Amino acid sequence: MGLHYAARLVSLVVIGSIAFDSVRTPFGERERMLGGSAVHFSLAASFFTDTRVVGPVGDDFGDAEYEVLRERGVDTSDIERVEGGKTFFWAGEYGYDVNARETLDTQLGVFGDFDPKLSDESRAADMLFLGNIQPDLQREVRRQCDRAELVGLDSMNLWIDTTRESLLAAIREVDLLFLNDAEIRELMEEPNLVRAARRVMELGPRAVVAKQGEYGAALYTGERFFSLPAYPLETVVDPTGAGDCFAGGFMGYLASRGEGAAADDEELRRAMTYGSVLASFNVEEFGTDRVRRLERDEIDRRYDEFREITAISTAPVR
Amino acid sequence: MGLHYAARLVSLVVIGSIAFDSVRTPFGERERMLGGSAVHFSLAASFFTDTRVVGPVGDDFGDAEYEVLRERGVDTSDIERVEGGKTFFWAGEYGYDVNARETLDTQLGVFGDFDPKLSDESRAADMLFLGNIQPDLQREVRRQCDRAELVGLDSMNLWIDTTRESLLAAIREVDLLFLNDAEIRELMEEPNLVRAARRVMELGPRAVVAKQGEYGAALYTGERFFSLPAYPLETVVDPTGAGDCFAGGFMGYLASRGEGAAADDEELRRAMTYGSVLASFNVEEFGTDRVRRLERDEIDRRYDEFREITAISTAPVR
Repeated sequence: MGLHYAARLVSLVVIGSIAFDSVRTPFGERERMLGGSAVHFSLAASFFTDTRVVGPVGDDFGDAEYEVLRERGVDTSDIERVEGGKTFFWAGEYGYDVNARETLDTQLGVFGDFDPKLSDESRAADMLFLGNIQPDLQREVRRQCDRAELVGLDSMNLWIDTTRESLLAAIREVDLLFLNDAEIRELMEEPNLVRAARRVMELGPRAVVAKQGEYGAALYTGERFFSLPAYPLETVVDPTGAGDCFAGGFMGYLASRGEGAAADDEELRRAMTYGSVLASFNVEEFGTDRVRRLERDEIDRRYDEFREITAISTAPVR
Repeated sequence: MGLHYAARLVSLVVIGSIAFDSVRTPFGERERMLGGSAVHFSLAASFFTDTRVVGPVGDDFGDAEYEVLRERGVDTSDIERVEGGKTFFWAGEYGYDVNARETLDTQLGVFGDFDPKLSDESRAADMLFLGNIQPDLQREVRRQCDRAELVGLDSMNLWIDTTRESLLAAIREVDLLFLNDAEIRELMEEPNLVRAARRVMELGPRAVVAKQGEYGAALYTGERFFSLPAYPLETVVDPTGAGDCFAGGFMGYLASRGEGAAADDEELRRAMTYGSVLASFNVEEFGTDRVRRLERDEIDRRYDEFREITAISTAPVR
């Protein structure tokens, strides 16, 4: 990241899962919807900047799926289509308490032996987001994108439990870590989130975003702290992909602000807010349905609502 | 509550437990500290307004305990001292995850057959806080304080589980409900907090404060919503009484602003913030230790910090 804050637009690449998701919730059930971390991320980021997706799909991934991404201007040329392969598949169920989800099925498909080879365009990216996949794959992509000036990484408890050292190595090589608060605690073996986040920053990242589900998200940057609630929704239809949309809105907004934005705390707070806006829309309907038909002015209205629901007046003169 | 916002100071009465607490945490262990909901509440409120405590103690409650309250200007003349009786006793343990606590012992003592008889001064209170005690006792005190123009109530899952109808009846008669978010959901049998809070308001209260522990608190008032994070602390030594200090700071601040303040959304948000400030200090040390030596300028500095950690700038011009 340069020392000067220039308004040059930067390019954003995301690697992550491209998936079919089957989801059951108290509000209904859907089979084989387009999903995956890279899909949710890139659709959210597409409202702010040009975004390229990297990841493998099988030959069950058809024109309809490509079209969802292309409609939003997402560059799909680095999606690797494996003939005879099956696209990653996930099935899960949510109860009335949307914070508890149960995985019913996971089929890696073409992700099982994915060996990422990025195009020259993707390798030249200024910003890179490493979605939630096996940490060694994240490191390999990070290595290929060695010109990226700002790199974000998301992960999950599965990798903390099974490949902790690889995950720690991957985290050492990135600038921003996105993780659930419980996962940050588990990863750092430190029950206090403030201290756990500080330990993450000692590894390398300059900022830590603690995702807190229905409680929103918190941002740790050196000595500063910022917290944002989730948007108050009466109905959360499908929470799948909320964290990816959050990261997509966050990174997409930063990319739109050009080189240097990530060094500006006010911009990081705006990025948190745009991320939360995108996540809040995403959960209102199944899969990508709501974000697909989202309009930019809806995003901006909800941004202003976030300012309203968090505003504290100065104390009265005593 | 009057229709006009007058700056007349109002009187605040709290009924709740006055207790000895034994607490074990990863940071140490303390025996028979002064505690209880009415104690924590009144110490917190005392920074803003004159506060009277109502509740029973045994003859094990000595001058040293009275002195803690009187040092902060709390009126103890309605504390009923039962000769031969034992003060309410609670023992509990917290793990490194401060959100999970285990009750090791509860001895009701003089609370077992407490029959509240308020003095004329307490009956004339403008504002009343019904701390977490058996709901029928709360109703009896509410009946005696029938001139109170603003009444807040706190409760807990024990009363939801054992005396739900009494608790609902008590809630119908108050203006503000303070409850943990999980308890609000359980009470209203509605997993979505926004809807559960709305249902509480259909019962009678004009506002609902959802306490969320380490995630802060949310305020529901009719169509408006406000959310505030907890203050980011690296060490939470003893979480006991945090909710009571929150309510004490909240109600005490409102009382200091005079009749009508509770009808003003900006004042309610300030009350949320002062409540969070008091709660955050309380948990920094065991029992009442930190709040006892707290200074008003520390409160005001932390209020300003809350404004800082929640501030979102306007979106950049697009």
